Amino acid sequence: MSLQNDLLLRTLKGEEVERPPVWLMRQAGRILPQYRELRGKLSGFIELVQTPDLAAEVTIQPVDELGVDAAIIFSDILVIPEAMGLHYELIEKVGPRFPTTIKTAQQIEELIEGADAASHLSYVYDAVSATKKGLNDRVPLIGFAGAPWTLFAYMIEGGGSKTFSQAKKFLYQNPKLSHQLLSKITTSVIEYLKLKINAGVNVVQLFDSWADLLTPELYSEFCIPYLKRIGDEVTGVPKILFAKGAWFALAQFQDLNYEGIGLDWKTSPKVAREHVGENKIFQGNLDPCMLYADAARIEHAAKNMVAEFGSSHIVNLGHGVYPDTPLENVKTFVNTIKSQSYT
Amino acid sequence: MSLQNDLLLRTLKGEEVERPPVWLMRQAGRILPQYRELRGKLSGFIELVQTPDLAAEVTIQPVDELGVDAAIIFSDILVIPEAMGLHYELIEKVGPRFPTTIKTAQQIEELIEGADAASHLSYVYDAVSATKKGLNDRVPLIGFAGAPWTLFAYMIEGGGSKTFSQAKKFLYQNPKLSHQLLSKITTSVIEYLKLKINAGVNVVQLFDSWADLLTPELYSEFCIPYLKRIGDEVTGVPKILFAKGAWFALAQFQDLNYEGIGLDWKTSPKVAREHVGENKIFQGNLDPCMLYADAARIEHAAKNMVAEFGSSHIVNLGHGVYPDTPLENVKTFVNTIKSQSYT
Repeated sequence: MSLQNDLLLRTLKGEEVERPPVWLMRQAGRILPQYRELRGKLSGFIELVQTPDLAAEVTIQPVDELGVDAAIIFSDILVIPEAMGLHYELIEKVGPRFPTTIKTAQQIEELIEGADAASHLSYVYDAVSATKKGLNDRVPLIGFAGAPWTLFAYMIEGGGSKTFSQAKKFLYQNPKLSHQLLSKITTSVIEYLKLKINAGVNVVQLFDSWADLLTPELYSEFCIPYLKRIGDEVTGVPKILFAKGAWFALAQFQDLNYEGIGLDWKTSPKVAREHVGENKIFQGNLDPCMLYADAARIEHAAKNMVAEFGSSHIVNLGHGVYPDTPLENVKTFVNTIKSQSYT
Repeated sequence: MSLQNDLLLRTLKGEEVERPPVWLMRQAGRILPQYRELRGKLSGFIELVQTPDLAAEVTIQPVDELGVDAAIIFSDILVIPEAMGLHYELIEKVGPRFPTTIKTAQQIEELIEGADAASHLSYVYDAVSATKKGLNDRVPLIGFAGAPWTLFAYMIEGGGSKTFSQAKKFLYQNPKLSHQLLSKITTSVIEYLKLKINAGVNVVQLFDSWADLLTPELYSEFCIPYLKRIGDEVTGVPKILFAKGAWFALAQFQDLNYEGIGLDWKTSPKVAREHVGENKIFQGNLDPCMLYADAARIEHAAKNMVAEFGSSHIVNLGHGVYPDTPLENVKTFVNTIKSQSYT
């Protein structure tokens, strides 16, 4: 391993380390003045995602500015539906919107899948290569994808939703078609992650952002089998699964091929360990709103979290950092973690 | 007890009953054609809430149309902030909006509280009286209020939000002021529920709709003490606490003075029982989206739920019924439950 800082990789391998690695979901984004400046010059988020040199630049910004122990490629989970042939837009302050949503067997039949879909995303692989070059082996680079259910939810619902009741309705009314669509998404995600790994990412993370809308039964039927396929078929780098709010499924994650399990701020390490067993590395889970508190309180919470989780832990928030979080507070958090020691 | 159908009350008393009672959160609403017709003639939701005879009419509609075992007074949790002096509006298809939000100690100081606030809500008590008259003792009438944290969240945030990050920020940045505001809300809720009981409601339910946004620590500090006060000080009728998504706090509910604990669809009766112990009655917890499925599947799910919960159970959904749920499906659900028998 030629990385100067391989703390994240050693932690994911289960090796003894001197302190937990720290990075933040959404660390490349609006919390950084460098990001806001660059973003202000562009027509939109999608332009940034699709321009490899710019994506690489914002991916590296938090490594320079915050000193985090990993970079995560600046991209979007919805590039997969786009590559499968379902176009989406990002509307400022509203979120993603699919002008056409999936309603019929015919539409599912016509979706591009697997390597054919993944081959449309060369701008992502180019961004990975450019980032690797820019990082110059300082820290590992994380690649990511949306989990099949979360991508399915957007493709049926057409945009963000409090309940995703249309997507869930589809699961209840069309279980067979749902499995067909989930399977095509899964194949595409697998090929996409393989190409990202080829391009140089050192770790992959799967985001199941809407896990917490499902019942335990729906999660077992429509999510676990696809998460298992991805875990089994994507090999060569360590993998992290972050299924937000899916506390009820933690016991099932035990048998999946992911070294790391992301936790939201509602799941204590004790509860998570009881469900998942001893073999997984946890990632998380500070409440992002804690970073609105004063420095003393942030320091206390950071130290407390490290003590509570013990070793085999990657420090992160329980969700993406909120865009209005003061930069100084993020630095206080990161620096506090970096001053900790297990010994 | 002179009620013709006192199944809900007997269940909440822990008595042996022939089958579980059934009602649905949001049963008085858009799923009913009678409601949509009446609503179409009015200027808005708030007009309906504030006109006792109309509120009574829509409260009784589901008893007539669905044959549910309880009515729940048609109202809104945000009448309490309104009565405390914080005006709100309901914007069609968007949700509630407070033109002014709470930011300062001075504003909290000036809020009306307790009996003074509760006295502004005579239209609610009049609606309860009118409903009792219209129901003519057929089924019990449930009164409700928002839990202190949920009302606090709206008063700070100013409207709906995916994260309520401004409200949570206030908890982290201003813990003392937060306690002051929560205490004033609590006192108002208590006096409000007392007056509702005086007016004739047979059961009260507390909705902590945004419970699932907090950490276990925040919930212990900013919610449990106020839920406890309400449980201890509101007496005379059975009480149900529904803290959506607060699986992590279930063990703490064991010691609170509520006979019933509402569950969302992610919490299985087995898990809930392990946390809460034997002394509480559970209410819930079908996924509202299950009511989009076909009749055979709904029947199966309804029977399955009754079998899984066993006795000491009030049948309901795990959240309010969604407005586009087909009426026939709701009837299939209610009728299936009513055909069950514990013996």
